[in-house]
Amino acid sequence: MPLIETLAAIVGPTQVLTDAADLAPYLADWRGRYHGAARCIVRPGCAEEVAALVRACAAARVPMVPQGGNTSLCGAATPDAAGEAVVISLARLNRIRALDAANNTITVEAGCTLAAVQQAAAAAGRLFPLSLASQGSCLIGGNLSTNAGGVHVLRYGNTRELTLGLEVVLPSGELWNGLRGLRKDNTGYDLKQLFIGAEGTLGIITAAVLKLFPAPRTTATAWLAIDSPAAALAVLARMQARFGAMLTACELVSGVALALVRRHLPGQTAPLPTTSAWHLLVDVSGADTAPVLLAALEECLGDALAAGEVSDVVIAQTLAQAAHLWALRENISEAQKREGFSIKHDISLPISAIPEFIAATDAALAAAFPGIRCVTFGHIGDGNLHYNQSMLDAADNARLLAGQAAVDRLIHDRVAALGGSISAEHGIGQLKRAELARYRSPVELATMRAIKQALDPLGLMNPGKVL
Amino acid sequence: MPLIETLAAIVGPTQVLTDAADLAPYLADWRGRYHGAARCIVRPGCAEEVAALVRACAAARVPMVPQGGNTSLCGAATPDAAGEAVVISLARLNRIRALDAANNTITVEAGCTLAAVQQAAAAAGRLFPLSLASQGSCLIGGNLSTNAGGVHVLRYGNTRELTLGLEVVLPSGELWNGLRGLRKDNTGYDLKQLFIGAEGTLGIITAAVLKLFPAPRTTATAWLAIDSPAAALAVLARMQARFGAMLTACELVSGVALALVRRHLPGQTAPLPTTSAWHLLVDVSGADTAPVLLAALEECLGDALAAGEVSDVVIAQTLAQAAHLWALRENISEAQKREGFSIKHDISLPISAIPEFIAATDAALAAAFPGIRCVTFGHIGDGNLHYNQSMLDAADNARLLAGQAAVDRLIHDRVAALGGSISAEHGIGQLKRAELARYRSPVELATMRAIKQALDPLGLMNPGKVL
Repeated sequence: MPLIETLAAIVGPTQVLTDAADLAPYLADWRGRYHGAARCIVRPGCAEEVAALVRACAAARVPMVPQGGNTSLCGAATPDAAGEAVVISLARLNRIRALDAANNTITVEAGCTLAAVQQAAAAAGRLFPLSLASQGSCLIGGNLSTNAGGVHVLRYGNTRELTLGLEVVLPSGELWNGLRGLRKDNTGYDLKQLFIGAEGTLGIITAAVLKLFPAPRTTATAWLAIDSPAAALAVLARMQARFGAMLTACELVSGVALALVRRHLPGQTAPLPTTSAWHLLVDVSGADTAPVLLAALEECLGDALAAGEVSDVVIAQTLAQAAHLWALRENISEAQKREGFSIKHDISLPISAIPEFIAATDAALAAAFPGIRCVTFGHIGDGNLHYNQSMLDAADNARLLAGQAAVDRLIHDRVAALGGSISAEHGIGQLKRAELARYRSPVELATMRAIKQALDPLGLMNPGKVL
Repeated sequence: MPLIETLAAIVGPTQVLTDAADLAPYLADWRGRYHGAARCIVRPGCAEEVAALVRACAAARVPMVPQGGNTSLCGAATPDAAGEAVVISLARLNRIRALDAANNTITVEAGCTLAAVQQAAAAAGRLFPLSLASQGSCLIGGNLSTNAGGVHVLRYGNTRELTLGLEVVLPSGELWNGLRGLRKDNTGYDLKQLFIGAEGTLGIITAAVLKLFPAPRTTATAWLAIDSPAAALAVLARMQARFGAMLTACELVSGVALALVRRHLPGQTAPLPTTSAWHLLVDVSGADTAPVLLAALEECLGDALAAGEVSDVVIAQTLAQAAHLWALRENISEAQKREGFSIKHDISLPISAIPEFIAATDAALAAAFPGIRCVTFGHIGDGNLHYNQSMLDAADNARLLAGQAAVDRLIHDRVAALGGSISAEHGIGQLKRAELARYRSPVELATMRAIKQALDPLGLMNPGKVL
């Protein structure tokens, strides 16, 4: 029987897509940088169907590309151009299987949107803290496969830290039920860690047990004008000492980034009358009443003002004001897109190295590429910068594009020299595969390949990604 | 050249121990349950020496047993009886390599005691939160290799969650430098996860980058009398809602366990005049002043009293009182030891399943083994119980010992039926290897073996442990 008929027998003929028009949305990535081809798209409805599909593809020696919400920024979910692969969409595995409020866990299928998981938690008076720009369309299986980060990592950790158990279809087509909802479990190798962040190259995650948290009663938000990244570190240390885990977000926004938002999104007025080279957006949250939390935040930021770490402060007095401050941060990517072409870098550094990195790398880029502009922002509390480059004069962007490899090299070399990472939260996918091979040691790459070979000896799971 | 001479050439002749008297402390486990034999003990002084030792042993096809403070409760660090193995002691790798206060990280070698790591952090105004009874003698490499837990997991996570980077000598003798101090790093498979909790079966951890935290300014401690484990869950949920991450410990102590402490450690007076079937010991900590934190704790526990969740409360008013309350909890193991023989179980459950588990398993044990006594205590905030059995009349303990396998089976079957774990924080070692094979699925065991085979194809790293 031809493979497509075998697949149709598993999922039903309507869940196997072969028309070019039906395939198109699955074959290009969200940013439009990658375009692939596939034999077909299959849309299984349960984990057992995923397992049967994998067995069928493995028997036919056909590569498989698992796909969630197709929001990867690195082309991790797009098949290659060969047209040999079967794309397995997880979108129909979208059940919330269980929620255990006393255990603070939720068991979800890979095809739930992140927003659906958040909403199910909220309906039970709980918080699922993973929060990303794409949360309305990204699927939790993709979040798991890329170990997604976002704005609350500072308090709650990456997706990896939010995961207690997984259900995975292995490359053999066997279904591994590791859906344990335990905070402590030292029984052999912690296999779930292998699949989290593996971008579908070691198997297909079909479900997960995730941690929930009590929903904070109160959140207080402030926008700070600061002189430098070094001042940002001083404020971060002060706020961590004062608020501990109640400091739930600490975002750095350069004046350049803020100006782009104000230019392209006219409703976004600046929160402070002063212009400043740098800004911080901070959230503190907890179970205190709003007056108590606001008073504590005011006192702490007053001390930061008195110490000269901060030049101006605005504390949101209403939810609408807080939402306005957050919109400034969240609209940076959209403003950049409207501005035109940019080269993006999703990097992380030891937090202590950030001031040195920004000063030295900005200067080196300016020297090597006159007229370049750095749009710098990100999750400074996690050491994660989005460090993007375009030309001050958009007419010069074609020249910058031609030099992209040199820009990447300059930046990534400096990241590596300071002990940083060339992919903090976006992953490797197709985009950074060559860079990974360059910046990781031979022994580390060989060990990764040994793991890949051990679990996927036929090399059929999402080939051409990561390694 | 004979292997021992090769090893002596690497570490120096004084660091290779071959006399029986010198070997003895390395060949028996801390609880005296396991006694092994070895060709020699080698005591390398740096990671490069460890790598050279591993290459030499691998070339000679000689098994290796890495050993830290030899405080395993499962025989994980004791060689088998064959006498073929070389025991590699990590004790001389005891440098604090670096501390980065702004990055909240410390880089330590495997041979540092846990207490030394805690002290180095404290000297920099930081907290390293891992805390165990054996912290003065256990080594951090052992803590990493067993993914150690302890009393602060509720707030800060297991050792795994505290680890940002590792340096590991692979079974090939290659040295992998994964000492990255990054909160976010999505660059391929997260290899460090494999070695954490692998009990030395996949390689030898030589150093780590660990997370530090701002030292909390204030801690408030309370002892609560409660009627049942269900009441403990109600108090836990109430305190998590009120204090969030400021709830740093939540320990369950049965009346039976408390009575043992009072009997065998006469200085340990009970904190409350009432006798109660169950107790909770709780810590809240943060940056509030002591009066503010105490007032919040009093209010929260007052509400718990009013709601009938708690029958009596004492809040420590001094550090000495807090230490006294904690000594009651920490002396349970010592009191049990003085009482005589007991069968120990280190289990975890979904927190919501704990009341059902205790009630049903206590009853089933009483029916199957008349005269049995359960000493139940543990980290209820993590779902981790220490659930130990002995006979009410110590004269009957020989009969219980003869029935240990049946006791284990009854308990572990119930743990498994409720989705729990047969080893929450102690690991597998030699002790629970057969139990692991029983309670984990064939596909999970096969995947673990595939990992072992991929990294240690000669099977020389700590053989006879875990798998």
